[in-house]
Amino acid sequence: MSEPRPGLSYAGAGVDIDAAHRAMRGVAALVRSTATADTLSELGSFGGLYRVPRSVRDPVLVASTDGVGTKLKVAFTAGRHDTVGEDLVNHCVNDILVQGARPLFFLDYVGVGTLRPGVVEALVEGVARGCRANGCALLGGETAEMPDMYAPGEYDLAGTIVGVVEEGRVIDGRGVRAGDAIVALASSGLHTNGYSLARRILFDRMGLGVDDPFPGEEASVADVLLRVHRSYLGALWPLVEAGRVRAMAHVTGGGLVDNVPRVLPSGVDARIDLASWTVPPAFRVLQREGGVEEGEMFRAFNMGVGMAVVVAADDADAAVRDLRGAGEEAWIVGGVVPGEGKTVFNRGVIR
Amino acid sequence: MSEPRPGLSYAGAGVDIDAAHRAMRGVAALVRSTATADTLSELGSFGGLYRVPRSVRDPVLVASTDGVGTKLKVAFTAGRHDTVGEDLVNHCVNDILVQGARPLFFLDYVGVGTLRPGVVEALVEGVARGCRANGCALLGGETAEMPDMYAPGEYDLAGTIVGVVEEGRVIDGRGVRAGDAIVALASSGLHTNGYSLARRILFDRMGLGVDDPFPGEEASVADVLLRVHRSYLGALWPLVEAGRVRAMAHVTGGGLVDNVPRVLPSGVDARIDLASWTVPPAFRVLQREGGVEEGEMFRAFNMGVGMAVVVAADDADAAVRDLRGAGEEAWIVGGVVPGEGKTVFNRGVIR
Repeated sequence: MSEPRPGLSYAGAGVDIDAAHRAMRGVAALVRSTATADTLSELGSFGGLYRVPRSVRDPVLVASTDGVGTKLKVAFTAGRHDTVGEDLVNHCVNDILVQGARPLFFLDYVGVGTLRPGVVEALVEGVARGCRANGCALLGGETAEMPDMYAPGEYDLAGTIVGVVEEGRVIDGRGVRAGDAIVALASSGLHTNGYSLARRILFDRMGLGVDDPFPGEEASVADVLLRVHRSYLGALWPLVEAGRVRAMAHVTGGGLVDNVPRVLPSGVDARIDLASWTVPPAFRVLQREGGVEEGEMFRAFNMGVGMAVVVAADDADAAVRDLRGAGEEAWIVGGVVPGEGKTVFNRGVIR
Repeated sequence: MSEPRPGLSYAGAGVDIDAAHRAMRGVAALVRSTATADTLSELGSFGGLYRVPRSVRDPVLVASTDGVGTKLKVAFTAGRHDTVGEDLVNHCVNDILVQGARPLFFLDYVGVGTLRPGVVEALVEGVARGCRANGCALLGGETAEMPDMYAPGEYDLAGTIVGVVEEGRVIDGRGVRAGDAIVALASSGLHTNGYSLARRILFDRMGLGVDDPFPGEEASVADVLLRVHRSYLGALWPLVEAGRVRAMAHVTGGGLVDNVPRVLPSGVDARIDLASWTVPPAFRVLQREGGVEEGEMFRAFNMGVGMAVVVAADDADAAVRDLRGAGEEAWIVGGVVPGEGKTVFNRGVIR
């Protein structure tokens, strides 16, 4: 005869509703710190409520969902959970900025195996910091506890942003003409792309640990890899409001090669002048140590350019000056030429 | 001397940008099938564009993010990927419906280890089906390929919905009074909650497989567990528009115990009459085989009630009639009584 089997419980199956409630209380103050004048709901309601700003006459909502990718793996190994949320918000802010929208609100999703005290709070701390810096309300979120979906100590983090733009002021690249200039804004590092390749090179091939110095840098591998994805909202918004921006491309997965063509009208190429900047040494370390081809580098990584902005040629110098005045590293990285919707490089097409 | 090491590539590190582009093309028609008159963007732009409907005078946006939880694990084992997207959309639709909002648009997030042909397409097929049924545009999404984050053949799926409600018509439970009736709408099964516990019982303790018959049912374990989370939008919207609904609680994680109090004003309890319905046999099988306590069951599972709707007592019979006329299984499940913000049961407090 078998022994009587103990009764099962939800907590015993790995889902602790009370722990989830505690984590929610832990983030309540963080969420409140992001509230704007148009935030109408409190934490704990089924949906978050946000008033469409009265100042916008014909509001168009612009929405985007994104994740952080395997930059998270670096956060796990380094045990730093309070910056990837900011990466995520800034990534999303840039994704809607390119269409002329400013952020209204953000919602985060955390998938996790087992809730560990402090981790969700640290994640939301980063999200909230990013939201505050971009004038964006953290309107809601979900922390899903999924035993046996995630390895111990691991999680996935995704988010959705909703912003607004006047219908007549959507930036869709229609105003782009051959002869326009392309201005680059510097990235702070890898941002949130190329981490699967970078980790393969640094950890597997070079055998480095997160606390080792990054080759050729004063900072550690973790410090370099976890540098926060920049938001370009503050620097670019005055140009957007003044109608000086004809198109913008956020340089994410696919790099300059794939992202710039996404915002070009038909009949033109983006010609990028590789002599106009020095690719930051960290990318060259990855390239050399991984034996990665040049074309592959420019698709997997941003190579130092976080955002590409198309402006009228005769406004380019002023735009660079204004962006530098706003604290950005900015330069004329190329121009728009007749073509067929590709990114071309002045050393020839990068294979 | 070591052999020369081959150069690394992004695809070699497990991220195949071309496969991602192919998957995106595969879902383009699905995305287009969900477009509404206010959808302004095409697939492939950085953000999705949606016009705030002109018919709403003082629009308040209601947003919610959710996941599918470990119901996904059942989908993995059964190899059925085309229904969990519909679960997700319907869950989100209900979450904003309880505040009086109708859906505008949806964005999905898929985190995956390796893209397998057809899987993302099947996921999006479910999402798109749910969107079409709820008049909701699939405005965007992200498929993040993260080698070594997810086990082979596994993925996580989350989504965000944005809906709209007139500012003066937000349902916030303020109109709820002691004496009101609570109407229940039947669930179709477990919906998207309690799967970690249910899987433990069915697979680990009972040793069943997904293709085995579910005990006491004609259907298989997979069929019962993958029944689609119902959307109550169609049935409830006429009552919402007519101003007959004083509060609604979507019965998700935490069950009737935790969810109904979320929408009650202070000074009242929700009194649930356990004799008013028969808990579907599948829940009782889980309870018996798992030795799960009654109170635990009512927090882990919906126990047959997918939505609880508070209406005026003298409107309760008409509401039930109208909901049945709309095809719902509906009944008066209890009432609002003086109290302190809890769910109480007529067999005493469930521990």
